[in-house]
Amino acid sequence: MAQDGRRATPGLATGSFLGVPIATLDELTPGTVVIVGAPFDWGATHRPGARFGPAAIRAGDYLPADGRRPHLTAGVDPLVELPVVDVGDVPLPIGYVEASLEAIVEVVAEIAERGGVPVVLGGDHTITFAGATGVARAHGAGRVALVHFDAHADTGEDHYGQLHGHGTPMRRLIESGAVPGHRFVQIGLRGYWPPPETVAWMRQQQMRSWSMQACVEQGLGTVVDDAVAAAGAEDAAGVYVSVDIDVVDPGAAPGTGTPEPGGLQPRELLDTVRRLGRECHVIGADLVEVAPHYDQPMDLTARLANRLVLELLTGMAERRRHVAGRGPDPDRLRPPV
Amino acid sequence: MAQDGRRATPGLATGSFLGVPIATLDELTPGTVVIVGAPFDWGATHRPGARFGPAAIRAGDYLPADGRRPHLTAGVDPLVELPVVDVGDVPLPIGYVEASLEAIVEVVAEIAERGGVPVVLGGDHTITFAGATGVARAHGAGRVALVHFDAHADTGEDHYGQLHGHGTPMRRLIESGAVPGHRFVQIGLRGYWPPPETVAWMRQQQMRSWSMQACVEQGLGTVVDDAVAAAGAEDAAGVYVSVDIDVVDPGAAPGTGTPEPGGLQPRELLDTVRRLGRECHVIGADLVEVAPHYDQPMDLTARLANRLVLELLTGMAERRRHVAGRGPDPDRLRPPV
Amino acid sequence: MAQDGRRATPGLATGSFLGVPIATLDELTPGTVVIVGAPFDWGATHRPGARFGPAAIRAGDYLPADGRRPHLTAGVDPLVELPVVDVGDVPLPIGYVEASLEAIVEVVAEIAERGGVPVVLGGDHTITFAGATGVARAHGAGRVALVHFDAHADTGEDHYGQLHGHGTPMRRLIESGAVPGHRFVQIGLRGYWPPPETVAWMRQQQMRSWSMQACVEQGLGTVVDDAVAAAGAEDAAGVYVSVDIDVVDPGAAPGTGTPEPGGLQPRELLDTVRRLGRECHVIGADLVEVAPHYDQPMDLTARLANRLVLELLTGMAERRRHVAGRGPDPDRLRPPV
Amino acid sequence: MAQDGRRATPGLATGSFLGVPIATLDELTPGTVVIVGAPFDWGATHRPGARFGPAAIRAGDYLPADGRRPHLTAGVDPLVELPVVDVGDVPLPIGYVEASLEAIVEVVAEIAERGGVPVVLGGDHTITFAGATGVARAHGAGRVALVHFDAHADTGEDHYGQLHGHGTPMRRLIESGAVPGHRFVQIGLRGYWPPPETVAWMRQQQMRSWSMQACVEQGLGTVVDDAVAAAGAEDAAGVYVSVDIDVVDPGAAPGTGTPEPGGLQPRELLDTVRRLGRECHVIGADLVEVAPHYDQPMDLTARLANRLVLELLTGMAERRRHVAGRGPDPDRLRPPV
Amino acid sequence: MAQDGRRATPGLATGSFLGVPIATLDELTPGTVVIVGAPFDWGATHRPGARFGPAAIRAGDYLPADGRRPHLTAGVDPLVELPVVDVGDVPLPIGYVEASLEAIVEVVAEIAERGGVPVVLGGDHTITFAGATGVARAHGAGRVALVHFDAHADTGEDHYGQLHGHGTPMRRLIESGAVPGHRFVQIGLRGYWPPPETVAWMRQQQMRSWSMQACVEQGLGTVVDDAVAAAGAEDAAGVYVSVDIDVVDPGAAPGTGTPEPGGLQPRELLDTVRRLGRECHVIGADLVEVAPHYDQPMDLTARLANRLVLELLTGMAERRRHVAGRGPDPDRLRPPV
Amino acid sequence: MAQDGRRATPGLATGSFLGVPIATLDELTPGTVVIVGAPFDWGATHRPGARFGPAAIRAGDYLPADGRRPHLTAGVDPLVELPVVDVGDVPLPIGYVEASLEAIVEVVAEIAERGGVPVVLGGDHTITFAGATGVARAHGAGRVALVHFDAHADTGEDHYGQLHGHGTPMRRLIESGAVPGHRFVQIGLRGYWPPPETVAWMRQQQMRSWSMQACVEQGLGTVVDDAVAAAGAEDAAGVYVSVDIDVVDPGAAPGTGTPEPGGLQPRELLDTVRRLGRECHVIGADLVEVAPHYDQPMDLTARLANRLVLELLTGMAERRRHVAGRGPDPDRLRPPV
Repeated sequence: MAQDGRRATPGLATGSFLGVPIATLDELTPGTVVIVGAPFDWGATHRPGARFGPAAIRAGDYLPADGRRPHLTAGVDPLVELPVVDVGDVPLPIGYVEASLEAIVEVVAEIAERGGVPVVLGGDHTITFAGATGVARAHGAGRVALVHFDAHADTGEDHYGQLHGHGTPMRRLIESGAVPGHRFVQIGLRGYWPPPETVAWMRQQQMRSWSMQACVEQGLGTVVDDAVAAAGAEDAAGVYVSVDIDVVDPGAAPGTGTPEPGGLQPRELLDTVRRLGRECHVIGADLVEVAPHYDQPMDLTARLANRLVLELLTGMAERRRHVAGRGPDPDRLRPPV
Repeated sequence: MAQDGRRATPGLATGSFLGVPIATLDELTPGTVVIVGAPFDWGATHRPGARFGPAAIRAGDYLPADGRRPHLTAGVDPLVELPVVDVGDVPLPIGYVEASLEAIVEVVAEIAERGGVPVVLGGDHTITFAGATGVARAHGAGRVALVHFDAHADTGEDHYGQLHGHGTPMRRLIESGAVPGHRFVQIGLRGYWPPPETVAWMRQQQMRSWSMQACVEQGLGTVVDDAVAAAGAEDAAGVYVSVDIDVVDPGAAPGTGTPEPGGLQPRELLDTVRRLGRECHVIGADLVEVAPHYDQPMDLTARLANRLVLELLTGMAERRRHVAGRGPDPDRLRPPV
Repeated sequence: MAQDGRRATPGLATGSFLGVPIATLDELTPGTVVIVGAPFDWGATHRPGARFGPAAIRAGDYLPADGRRPHLTAGVDPLVELPVVDVGDVPLPIGYVEASLEAIVEVVAEIAERGGVPVVLGGDHTITFAGATGVARAHGAGRVALVHFDAHADTGEDHYGQLHGHGTPMRRLIESGAVPGHRFVQIGLRGYWPPPETVAWMRQQQMRSWSMQACVEQGLGTVVDDAVAAAGAEDAAGVYVSVDIDVVDPGAAPGTGTPEPGGLQPRELLDTVRRLGRECHVIGADLVEVAPHYDQPMDLTARLANRLVLELLTGMAERRRHVAGRGPDPDRLRPPV
Repeated sequence: MAQDGRRATPGLATGSFLGVPIATLDELTPGTVVIVGAPFDWGATHRPGARFGPAAIRAGDYLPADGRRPHLTAGVDPLVELPVVDVGDVPLPIGYVEASLEAIVEVVAEIAERGGVPVVLGGDHTITFAGATGVARAHGAGRVALVHFDAHADTGEDHYGQLHGHGTPMRRLIESGAVPGHRFVQIGLRGYWPPPETVAWMRQQQMRSWSMQACVEQGLGTVVDDAVAAAGAEDAAGVYVSVDIDVVDPGAAPGTGTPEPGGLQPRELLDTVRRLGRECHVIGADLVEVAPHYDQPMDLTARLANRLVLELLTGMAERRRHVAGRGPDPDRLRPPV
Repeated sequence: MAQDGRRATPGLATGSFLGVPIATLDELTPGTVVIVGAPFDWGATHRPGARFGPAAIRAGDYLPADGRRPHLTAGVDPLVELPVVDVGDVPLPIGYVEASLEAIVEVVAEIAERGGVPVVLGGDHTITFAGATGVARAHGAGRVALVHFDAHADTGEDHYGQLHGHGTPMRRLIESGAVPGHRFVQIGLRGYWPPPETVAWMRQQQMRSWSMQACVEQGLGTVVDDAVAAAGAEDAAGVYVSVDIDVVDPGAAPGTGTPEPGGLQPRELLDTVRRLGRECHVIGADLVEVAPHYDQPMDLTARLANRLVLELLTGMAERRRHVAGRGPDPDRLRPPV
Repeated sequence: MAQDGRRATPGLATGSFLGVPIATLDELTPGTVVIVGAPFDWGATHRPGARFGPAAIRAGDYLPADGRRPHLTAGVDPLVELPVVDVGDVPLPIGYVEASLEAIVEVVAEIAERGGVPVVLGGDHTITFAGATGVARAHGAGRVALVHFDAHADTGEDHYGQLHGHGTPMRRLIESGAVPGHRFVQIGLRGYWPPPETVAWMRQQQMRSWSMQACVEQGLGTVVDDAVAAAGAEDAAGVYVSVDIDVVDPGAAPGTGTPEPGGLQPRELLDTVRRLGRECHVIGADLVEVAPHYDQPMDLTARLANRLVLELLTGMAERRRHVAGRGPDPDRLRPPV
């Protein structure tokens, strides 16, 4: 069969996320997970380059781009189970912040309104303002929970005197009412920013912010319990999961703009996002701040980001399968007995 | 218009060479230039990685992949004029040399038999055996001229006791009769290989081999005159142009497996391949030995290779336009007067 | 002395260009060359990162940052002769194009109005709109000549439907009247952009655009003669020299956003900018598109840019010395006799 | 002495593993550990380059290549205790899979038949088929246990329609009977490969496969207990330890072909292989998939691989010393009391 | 305000550690923490380049160099609280070991004698001889405790027959009496050096040396308890903390000269140095062996080193605040309740 | 044969220059070219790392290390013709300048006194003091000509108040009388160092120094004529050729410590050193300032250096063959006729 394949007319990689079908917005069906790229990095305050994130994350794998990824131990192929499509990148006017965000909001909102679950590949973190706003437009302002993995709180008052940058999206979301403060759970914060007055504001907003110090002292499991609880609050429409790759320790994710030492290990984050997918009702997600030029020729970070998306989708697929009354594939890898 | 575009359904890069249409072998029309990838590097004796060449060359540009590339000074858009399509990569059994070459021969021969002009993106230089054999199958064994840019003669007797490797394709082509020795013009040879007995064999075969020393002493123009003459010999069906990127000085093309200092400058080679396209009847070509991991994060070599393909196509388009009695676009860039 | 130095209180590098004095705008004296950074890269359409250009160019040297650089063969120390000061970087709201350009215009105009010669360290090429506008504000709209080294004409009609990006500054300058088309001399253009309709527009504007093909065919000396003539036109107030580092072949300047193979060699450009400094009345300059992360760990490009600035200043110092009736230092390096 | 050394005739590094004696096959004595390189990477499906692994692992150290490495805390110098020699690399016909494997089998088998313990430096994982086959030829087909550290099960049905590649060696070993399924202990598996039907086959073969998820949930110690037990089964001749460097998290071992995020930490693996050496009867080993070009200029991965070999040898030396009734060197580093 | 800032006269980064004030030695006031660079790497036995450490550590951040770093969870800004100044680099005669060390001793001693707390940015580890000697000169020979984080004991008998190199400083300090053996606590040792006879000597000197194996087996907390106890011994004047960045696992700190796999994780070390600052009386410190060229373009290691300095200072600031009877800022980030 | 080879006992690369025989000093025979490494870089004022030059230059090739390199166009195999041996590296006390230089002088002098031609692989340029001193000790102080390719004159008065560094060797040689000023021919100087007073001193010493500007204006051929003339002066014992790799443009030789843009192209230098070998009586040589970590993963510079050594040796072999009345091998590559 493979041998026959070699004699067939040759083919080309499609460029979609791991080879899932390419779709247009108007052909989406409810329940579909929709990969969409937001190649935006003009909100980055330090090393730019996250505009190359979407392409790098889509291709960040060594397996064929065949639209199939059976999870070794979960007993489900998320790309098939959910299913997943890719609508490509939102075209953006480079260097024009507001116009770009508006373009992303519209695409994400349309996906969500058609019943899809948008998974936005950033791009710098500015785009979470657009992603979560788009989801809130469909599911109701104030009703979306936001689980936010990051070294930074991203609650800055302003961005060099302007509204939007990669340090401000969470504040803008609270201010606009798209996501109220008490629906935020932040995990992995550390370092020397933001300043005390911003921390005070965060507390006033009832944001639930867990530092790395807290993760170490209380255990990551406890912290994630809190996130699961917030996402499952009775009046919440569902959860938007925003993963800034810099929540991971820079040694394992160097390809990012503002690396802050002392973060999570990949194994921890992979398992955590899968757990969120499995235990929460995910209605949107993004994976941001992958700037692949900074880790060449190694190319670690986009590959990790690719897996983080896959683990989240795996969890979501496990949940759907469970909800549908079906168990995992018996031919998954299980510990020897 | 561009502004409207941003509001339209987003799209995905196709993965074809600069966005030219993707085609299958059975829909080819005569005269079409056909890009085909040969991601083969198990013939490389030193640094492998040229299997990533086809993808890197296709995408080695900073302009949109929109299938248009109007040449600034030639007054022609080769992608539109010729036209050009991309049939993707030949599927190959990695590490199995003969089976892989056979697969490439079949695809290239089919392209040529359908009247297409195959442009093979390597891959290591082993694949020129397959490319030129495929073209010769369509145009007549012994009737194809081969203009070969390279630091190395690639006329090795064997490859570690085996037939095929990236140091032997030219010998195998002569032995098989696909391309007789007197139809070879080699440009840019230098270094310490092959040994005298092989050089003697090459002379016996009447190969026309120009070293870098000869290019410096006699002028590159004179050398290329010789290539044009050989390609235009009365009984030749046309010319197959094989460009090993290591003919260029490693300072400008470091992403290759066996770099040999002291080669051509990019400007020289760009102008030369365009001249060949314009002055010869090109019936096939390849661009080989681009191993992109060795020049990260710079990414010089694939971008140069992309331009070498474009310049060859530009020359071919100029030639067609001229043959058709049409001159260049008047709105090309010309020197001020 | 040096030994004593080791016992003295240690000091810190100032961070200025090669250690020249730091100044504020209000203490500038006429005739001073003023280094100013414009860490702007949100106009870059491909690889961003030129925001790190100013810092990298300032420090791109292996000699001490002592504010002295006696030119080996010119017999003048440009940093002392001119003199030169550094006013630091213009603070910019990252990702907000118009506000940023406005900030740069103001600083450059103030420098020029105070009689200084601004040398702007970019940043991407968008900033030339601001730099040349600022100089024209002081020296008279329409009276500044612009010698422009670049692989790209930068005369794009728009930037993704917006006004400003690194492909549009020359058009915006012509449209605003700051620099009329006939005062442009462009050197080094190549590749596949802009399209014919833009080339036609350029011709209508009487821009004098020399492609690399023209440089090769007519000789670089002839081309530079044309630039000197334009700069010295009777009604011109002086010349603004804009060097996009991508005019150099990418092999020697890989740290840039949109590398186009086949450019000038460093030796050619170094000698050319020095000649312009010596033979023209330079009233402003910029050095743009150095994105240093793309050539690490080599760090070639910022070091080349540092020398290009120095060679331009050297030429300017030679000119001043000549105008003042003083010859070069006799203790310069001269060929043996 | 060192001072005298500087005045002596200078010497050259031998190129052997850390300077251990170079030997030929016919001078081996029983019990000697024999380093042998297998510079084979034409079985790699993604990033090749592991052919440079043997040289890089041998030299992956900052200490002198003097054939001595006293372990800081174990109280034994494995290079002296065992002893260890290096027979160089097996000459291989690049790109010819079967002929290459055959060459490796012969060398490994001869080492084992002469009573040596072969430690094969890969090379991609295809070579484990040859290494374990060679050992089984000497110690009895079906009697070798195989402890396999890897992100991937390497039990693929075929390799692009062919028999051998780096995803198939474990299946080929089971099929040939060299190593039966129940003698396999796999540690560290993760990701999205192989598919369920292969997992089912693995279970049928009674392979004992521990995923990273299992390592996290049950503790690595428990998992290694299982490996020790399997290796010490009554009817087993001994254990062959195969370490694919990609079992380590890519952040700490980026120089490999198919990195899969979420693996073991170096500290865990170092201690584990030392434990295996100490608690099992090791009769062969390999260390594969180090492709050093992908982590330059850092050069992390080969240095880690060098230490993994040393820790395994340290454990083996501790075991021999214990068996011989000798304790560790009292002058080892021990915790303060 | 930020907006106004953009219109103000532009400024230049000062080049000091994160923008703290620059000072000269004669203006120091007691209690001030004094950053001083020791760009010395001619004691490095393998990969040199730590001379670029001081500059890289000072600038290893993505936040503005504004002299402020409010710790997110500690509730204190160490740069403001302590306060901290930077006196620049000690001028050194490159390649002349003794003269260089002497120059460093003098500067460090003067800082300490004026009541400052020197924090020396190396440089290779040779400089700890100078740093600790300088501190001991002010605080009393034999009365300084030294907590030493390192993969290597640095107690070598000699350095190629000479006295000083980066493998000998701890022995030289013991021999000179500046720091007696029983006041040393070493943490993180591993690998294959030094040899048993040196280990025996270390034990004779009563050095308290904890290997990574001990840290794993007994827990890092226990080990740090020991360090705190030694630093707080009744007759100790205070503690000098010496952090060799290679104590960290090379995956997270690849930019160093002699990387040894299997070290501490960044999170562990960050928390540990902060704890030392908080629980001990720190009278001097150094951070050595950052050689930034080996981790380009990632730039991980200097950024980690920058944070290690900050965490140490944070702990020191917490201690001072506590001593002064003031608690932490209430607007610090605390776990949600 | 190759096939048989694969079945033979495997072998190890010897580590010598391209596999030439390893020798000890006492077995040298007159007329032998002797490769010797000087891994010294503590005289480098900027980026160190040239200590790795000798190993990198020896191995900087993609052909087998078999001790044979038949030159493609010269018709001679220099490694066989001359012959060439390798005595390894001089052991050096790292960071101790004078002791290191003394060690090198002794080895080089002994080689020269035994009739060998030392070819020293550096190391930074400080070692030329030792190399030329050693040769002068054997051939007569004041009687050695020195042809010096470099961007820098290396005639500095002192090195941070000390005698030796990589900016001072030429001055020290003149001062000691080993090589008088009038026997120096320097080629390729450029940039901003040394200062005028040093240039004046150089002129007083009658050094013949050709800047790049002079090379461009007068033609490289003319400049080399001057070198040949000086080397052949009636009273000269022969010539020592010192090639600092930074004479080459950094684009083609980025792996060096103090790169200065605007240098020679590799083709020019390769042909020039071969010409010197052919037309002069070479009695010693060095190739310095290759610091290979700065051009990873490309690895351009050591490969260029390897070829520069080979071209020099080729010229020397051509000369010997000519002197012996033998012409070149007829089976060399010659231009087609």
